[in-house]
Amino acid sequence: MSSTRIESIAAYDARYPLPEGVGSDAVHKAPVYCFAVTRLKTNQPLTATGITLTLGVGNRMVCDLIELLAAPLAGLEIEELMSDFGQFSRQLSDHPHLRWLGPHKGAGHLALASITNACLDLWAKSRGVPLWRLLLDLSPQQLVRLLDLRYLEDELTRDTAEDMFRAQLASRKQRESILARGYPGYDTSVGWFGYDDDKVRENARQALAAGFRALKLKVGSSDPERDLRRAHMLRELAGDDCLLMVDANQQWSIPQALDLCAKLRDVRPYWIEEPTHPDDVLGHARLAQAIAPLRIAAGEHVPNRILFKNYMQARALHFVQADCCRLAGISEYITVSLLARKYGLPMVPHAGDMGQIHQSLVLFDHIALDAPVVFLENIPHLRSHLVHPAQVEEGVYRTPQAPGCACDLIELEEPPLKSTA
Amino acid sequence: MSSTRIESIAAYDARYPLPEGVGSDAVHKAPVYCFAVTRLKTNQPLTATGITLTLGVGNRMVCDLIELLAAPLAGLEIEELMSDFGQFSRQLSDHPHLRWLGPHKGAGHLALASITNACLDLWAKSRGVPLWRLLLDLSPQQLVRLLDLRYLEDELTRDTAEDMFRAQLASRKQRESILARGYPGYDTSVGWFGYDDDKVRENARQALAAGFRALKLKVGSSDPERDLRRAHMLRELAGDDCLLMVDANQQWSIPQALDLCAKLRDVRPYWIEEPTHPDDVLGHARLAQAIAPLRIAAGEHVPNRILFKNYMQARALHFVQADCCRLAGISEYITVSLLARKYGLPMVPHAGDMGQIHQSLVLFDHIALDAPVVFLENIPHLRSHLVHPAQVEEGVYRTPQAPGCACDLIELEEPPLKSTA
Repeated sequence: MSSTRIESIAAYDARYPLPEGVGSDAVHKAPVYCFAVTRLKTNQPLTATGITLTLGVGNRMVCDLIELLAAPLAGLEIEELMSDFGQFSRQLSDHPHLRWLGPHKGAGHLALASITNACLDLWAKSRGVPLWRLLLDLSPQQLVRLLDLRYLEDELTRDTAEDMFRAQLASRKQRESILARGYPGYDTSVGWFGYDDDKVRENARQALAAGFRALKLKVGSSDPERDLRRAHMLRELAGDDCLLMVDANQQWSIPQALDLCAKLRDVRPYWIEEPTHPDDVLGHARLAQAIAPLRIAAGEHVPNRILFKNYMQARALHFVQADCCRLAGISEYITVSLLARKYGLPMVPHAGDMGQIHQSLVLFDHIALDAPVVFLENIPHLRSHLVHPAQVEEGVYRTPQAPGCACDLIELEEPPLKSTA
Repeated sequence: MSSTRIESIAAYDARYPLPEGVGSDAVHKAPVYCFAVTRLKTNQPLTATGITLTLGVGNRMVCDLIELLAAPLAGLEIEELMSDFGQFSRQLSDHPHLRWLGPHKGAGHLALASITNACLDLWAKSRGVPLWRLLLDLSPQQLVRLLDLRYLEDELTRDTAEDMFRAQLASRKQRESILARGYPGYDTSVGWFGYDDDKVRENARQALAAGFRALKLKVGSSDPERDLRRAHMLRELAGDDCLLMVDANQQWSIPQALDLCAKLRDVRPYWIEEPTHPDDVLGHARLAQAIAPLRIAAGEHVPNRILFKNYMQARALHFVQADCCRLAGISEYITVSLLARKYGLPMVPHAGDMGQIHQSLVLFDHIALDAPVVFLENIPHLRSHLVHPAQVEEGVYRTPQAPGCACDLIELEEPPLKSTA
């Protein structure tokens, strides 16, 4: 294996306008999906790509921060960098000029996500393996050295983290069958907020025909009757066996959430997603108690391992929707996976990466940590921009085989580079 | 009163390098104090200034966001704007292009702080009164219309907030004596982290001679013995009657905090400030229980009312160090004051504004909400840049009399404008 050294870093502000209604929720009526992209060029014919998601003009700022934060990567050899990446990541996350803007949240943390994901992409490509293979080939010690476990000392030390991986080594083999079967997906794109009832029905029929057995509906309307009507409509159409999730995108107060969850009970939602503000840990905990047996999914706006620790300690969520584009990349995602394992909670990542990275991470969670197989969100709208779009067939993610994190973007690969950096 | 209309908005990136050691803590060895400044020009000979604090190059980004977010202010009449400012503020805080970078935290929220503070400055100047007078002259209904109480419905509705102000109207008169006496200060500048022991001793002697009866020491060193030695040194020098606070600037894990707080008990600190990560609400709650009768101060990195609600519900802090430069400005500060009043907790603001705005807010807290008088942080390092620096005499803030929020900066008043926008 020849040595791979990072020679230059560049950020790209890639924006993808969407057709009407696509991606809409109770907050974002007409979102633009944007990737703040980190590109690493090396001394080899290897270029790495890291992404994080934002929704609009703020993407420019994340790109500026990528260029600022990633500067120390220049000249580093990838194996050396990744041998103590947790320490490196901690330093970036405590940048003395930027920490005040967080800490460990906001635009700087999103920039760190993109940078971290690029480093993992480069590492996997330099070894010629897809991300899930890279991670499974690491020893427990190597895995833990990727992580910044600071502020988790009351829950998770380096030793306990290593032990958790070590304890699952012997039984890994039997869980590797998932690689051939593929990981189940679910369809988020059925019930965007802006779609009318006809469109939701049509999408649901198509999704069921395509093999999906779990569908999501956006709720959180200022007109709760609309939400209830559409939820019942979807349950009727999909039948009793299909899982149905509802997503309020933080639009409810605690009293509203209590009211609406009671009214939604008949629809038997598999989960209630983001019922209220993502910082309201104790609000979620109160809801979780009150609406049982309904369960709560949250995480796409939970910015770091410390808040996830609080969510878990407070028994405030049932499905952990961590996102390696919201957290400080793949490494903090793995940290949250360890916490989830400790608390017996399933990882059901939010796909800010359109599933490209998480398709590897859920395989890793299952095989390396014996995480339960649930399903992975499928959002197909950016497929045409990806060099290796996830292959979802019969509602199942086919195990990716291309080296890296599957985040290379067609427009950045074809000269001239569409750079707005 | 002639109508005052906002004609243009500009942001200024004002940076103030500090002498060696000044402002240093366990995280920031050589900070640069920066204000991200909002300037509102009007159809009158009135210009308003709003500020938020950051520590370095990230300030530029907050300025960019000010210009983006504040654009809708152009053309608005100030009385009209402030008659429903809570709704206006909510709209800015949910900007669909920026909300993903928060929500309600990070650079966008800091920008909103600066913008909000500029609006309040203009309102007070247009009425020819200092901020505390402006606020005291508002009716309970007008006050509550300044606020965005969303996500607090389980603790604080508009009606209960109005009732809380109304309940204190009759007894206001007796508390107005504070205006003549002035509000006590405490000296943060004694024990910056980078000062050597001699310098700390010298500063402490000067602070005591100047009339201060409360001093703060920065701790959180990687060498806990240094922290303990300096804390004992300061207690010996200051005597038993002086209040002594220690500030760990988030540097301890929960186990370290438990250990160090036990060791610091002999020094009888009045509070332990920021013992661990500001997102670790339940960690603070556990500490609060374990270290009693020692008490916890926190808030300078608590970004919004929702996390403060969680801190209070969890009984995780004893002194509320809200900062109108970290929260979305003066209006969210008042919201947190209402929560603190409900929970019987004292407001002891963090002075990201160098005390310029908070000197009015603590007077308002006491007179309008019967908040207890504690003391206000005094950080004198930017005095020479302020048109109306706070007057602190014999350790007491003299009640400010100049119209507005006292944030006008000398360099921005004297032509040519030092603009880097």
